[in-house]
Amino acid sequence: MLRLFYAKGWVSGTGGGICGLTDAGLLVAPTGVHKERVQPGDLFLVDPGTGDTIAAPDDAGLRPSECTPIFRAIVAARGVGSVIHSHALAAVLAADLAKDDALTIRDLEMLKGLGVSNLEEHVVAVIDNTERESQLTADVERVLADGRYDRAAAILVRDHGAYIWGGDVWDAKKHAEVYHFLFEATNARRR
Amino acid sequence: MLRLFYAKGWVSGTGGGICGLTDAGLLVAPTGVHKERVQPGDLFLVDPGTGDTIAAPDDAGLRPSECTPIFRAIVAARGVGSVIHSHALAAVLAADLAKDDALTIRDLEMLKGLGVSNLEEHVVAVIDNTERESQLTADVERVLADGRYDRAAAILVRDHGAYIWGGDVWDAKKHAEVYHFLFEATNARRR
Amino acid sequence: MLRLFYAKGWVSGTGGGICGLTDAGLLVAPTGVHKERVQPGDLFLVDPGTGDTIAAPDDAGLRPSECTPIFRAIVAARGVGSVIHSHALAAVLAADLAKDDALTIRDLEMLKGLGVSNLEEHVVAVIDNTERESQLTADVERVLADGRYDRAAAILVRDHGAYIWGGDVWDAKKHAEVYHFLFEATNARRR
Amino acid sequence: MLRLFYAKGWVSGTGGGICGLTDAGLLVAPTGVHKERVQPGDLFLVDPGTGDTIAAPDDAGLRPSECTPIFRAIVAARGVGSVIHSHALAAVLAADLAKDDALTIRDLEMLKGLGVSNLEEHVVAVIDNTERESQLTADVERVLADGRYDRAAAILVRDHGAYIWGGDVWDAKKHAEVYHFLFEATNARRR
Repeated sequence: MLRLFYAKGWVSGTGGGICGLTDAGLLVAPTGVHKERVQPGDLFLVDPGTGDTIAAPDDAGLRPSECTPIFRAIVAARGVGSVIHSHALAAVLAADLAKDDALTIRDLEMLKGLGVSNLEEHVVAVIDNTERESQLTADVERVLADGRYDRAAAILVRDHGAYIWGGDVWDAKKHAEVYHFLFEATNARRR
Repeated sequence: MLRLFYAKGWVSGTGGGICGLTDAGLLVAPTGVHKERVQPGDLFLVDPGTGDTIAAPDDAGLRPSECTPIFRAIVAARGVGSVIHSHALAAVLAADLAKDDALTIRDLEMLKGLGVSNLEEHVVAVIDNTERESQLTADVERVLADGRYDRAAAILVRDHGAYIWGGDVWDAKKHAEVYHFLFEATNARRR
Repeated sequence: MLRLFYAKGWVSGTGGGICGLTDAGLLVAPTGVHKERVQPGDLFLVDPGTGDTIAAPDDAGLRPSECTPIFRAIVAARGVGSVIHSHALAAVLAADLAKDDALTIRDLEMLKGLGVSNLEEHVVAVIDNTERESQLTADVERVLADGRYDRAAAILVRDHGAYIWGGDVWDAKKHAEVYHFLFEATNARRR
Repeated sequence: MLRLFYAKGWVSGTGGGICGLTDAGLLVAPTGVHKERVQPGDLFLVDPGTGDTIAAPDDAGLRPSECTPIFRAIVAARGVGSVIHSHALAAVLAADLAKDDALTIRDLEMLKGLGVSNLEEHVVAVIDNTERESQLTADVERVLADGRYDRAAAILVRDHGAYIWGGDVWDAKKHAEVYHFLFEATNARRR
C-alpha cells in the first residue's frame, strides 16, 4: 500500500508514513527510507501503550518512524486502528489557509466520505510545526482532547502535512483520499 | 474499468460509480466501497423499470449504489445503456462557473466527441446538491425533460460532481473523458 | 505507443492520432475509436501521394483518421516520416497566447530538443479551427510554405490542439514531448 | 531508475540525465536518447578525474552526456557518488523566483530530507543558462566553491533545470524528490 501512497505523492523523499494496529501490537514503518521500497519484513512491532519495540526488522540499521508517539496518541484517543502521515503538497497549502488554527471545509459532497453530512462545516485543527517530529505530540494530544475537532479524522501540521486516521488500514486510506480531495478543492476555490 | 476511473481521480475515496445495462437488467456497483477493488461478483443486478434487485452479490454487507434511482431515470429518459457518476474536482470547479443553473462550453474541438459541432454553444444543466443522493432524482428528472439540455450527455451537481452517460459502457467512458477535458479547459480559461 | 500517448493525455476521448511512413505507404490510425485500444491490425495503409487506401483493417466499421490529408501535406512538405496529432489541454491553452497567428517560445533549454539553439525565439504558427478537420488542410499547407515557420516541427490549431512531426515515430514522439513541455512552460510563465 | 524519472517528468524529450560512481569509474548515460529506453549496456564508463572514456557502449552512434564535465566537477567538489540532471518544469519555474542569483527555501518540513533543519533558510545557487551545456561548468565550479551554498545538494540553472546530487544513486534520488517538492511548494506559495 505504501507503493500506492508513493504514486499519489503522499510519501515522497522518504517522508510520510503509516501504522496499523494488529492483535500483536502496532505495526510501524521505518524512518528515513524510500517508502515505495518498504517490505513487510522492514516493519516494527510496537506496544501501543508503552511505545516499547516488541519486534524489530532484521536490518539493525532501521529505526521506527519518528511519528510513533503521535500514532500512539491518536490510536489511544480515538480508538482507531490505523494512522497515515502524509507529506502531500495539498496538505501543506491547505494548512496555509487556516484561520485561528483551524481549516474550515464546506460545500463539498465528499465530506460524506468522513461519515459526516455534506451540509456540515467541517473543522480540522492546524498545529504549528516543530523542529523534531516528537515535539508535535503534546499539540496533537491537546487538539485530540478539544471538542471542536471531535468529528475530524485528521490534524494538519503547518509546513509539514497531515495525520489522517481510520478504523483499519482501508478506512484510513479512504479518509486520506477524501481529505486530500477536500484539501485540493479548498485550495482551488481560495486561489 | 473502475480501476482506470480510479487512476483518473473520478472515483476516489469510495465515491463515484458506474452502471451498465444488460439484457438481464442494470448492473450497478455497490456503495461505500473502494471502487478500484470492486470485482465483477460485487455488482448488483437491478430491474431498470422498478428498481428492484434481481440479483445481489454474495457479500450480504454490500448495498447497491445510492445513485441507482438517478441511473434509472437517465436510462429511461435518454434510452442509453450506461451512466458514470464522477466525483472529479474538475467537475466540482466547473459547476462553480455556472450562470443561471447552466454551464456553457464553447470554442473547443473536443465538443465533437459528444457528436455535436465544435461551433456549438454546448449547455450543461447544473443542479444543487442535496443531503442525500436519492433527493437529487427529482431535479435530474426535471432537467432531463428540459429541452435546453437535449444535446447534453451530462448533468453537473454543485459541490459534488457529474452524471455522464452513453449508449454503452465504452460510449459513456468516451463521453466522460470528453466532458472532463471540457471542464478542465473551461476552468483553465476562466481562472 | 498510443497507450503511452493516452496516459499522457494527448489522445483522450478518442481524439488525436498518429501516422507513420513505411516503405509500403503511410500507416494511419482509425478515427473515432479509443486510442488506447488500437491494435496493429486496426491501422490503415494509405498512399501518401494520392491518399488512396492501399490496405484497410478487417473491421469494415473503421474509417481512416480525418487527419489523413493533413498528415499527407506535412509529410510531403517537410519530408518527414511521422506526424502526431495531439488534443492536449496545454496545446489549446498555448494557442490562446498567440499574437498575430503565432506563438513565440523563448528562454528555454528544452528548445534544443528541436535541434535549434536555446537562444532562439522559436515561432510556431497558430491557425484557426474549422468545423471539419479536413478543412484545415489549406491553412496547414499555407503555413508549411511560409518561411517564418521553417524551423518549427509543429502547428497549433486554436481550441483544438497541435500537429507535431519528426523524421520517424521516435523522433516525432521526442518532438511531441518537447513541444508539450514548451507549451506548459509558456502557459505557466504567462499566467 | 531512468524509467521512474521519466514517469515523474524529470527527463522528458530525451533531456536530463544521471551518473553514478562505481569502483571502476563514473557511469554516465548517453546524450540525445529517449531516457526511458536506456539499457545498462548503453552507459559510458568515464574516468572521473580526466574525463576520458574507459568503456563505451557497443552502439558507436552513442555519445556520453554533455553533462559529464559538470557531473565530474560536482563529484570532485562534494565527494558524492551520484548526480541527477533534471529538466522538470518545477525547477525552471523555481529558478524564475531567484533573487540575487539564489533561491531561498523556508518553512517546509521537507527540508529535513536534505539533512538540514526545517527552521533553516535553505539557499540554492541559481546560474544563468548557456548556449552549450559544457559552458556551464565554470559557473558550476564557482558556486560549488562559494561557502553560501555549502549546505545545498542542488544547483538551479535558469530556463533549464537543476543538478541534484547525493552519496549514492538512492541518496541522489531522495534529494531529487525532496528538491522537486520544495520547488513545487515554493512556486505554489509565490503564485
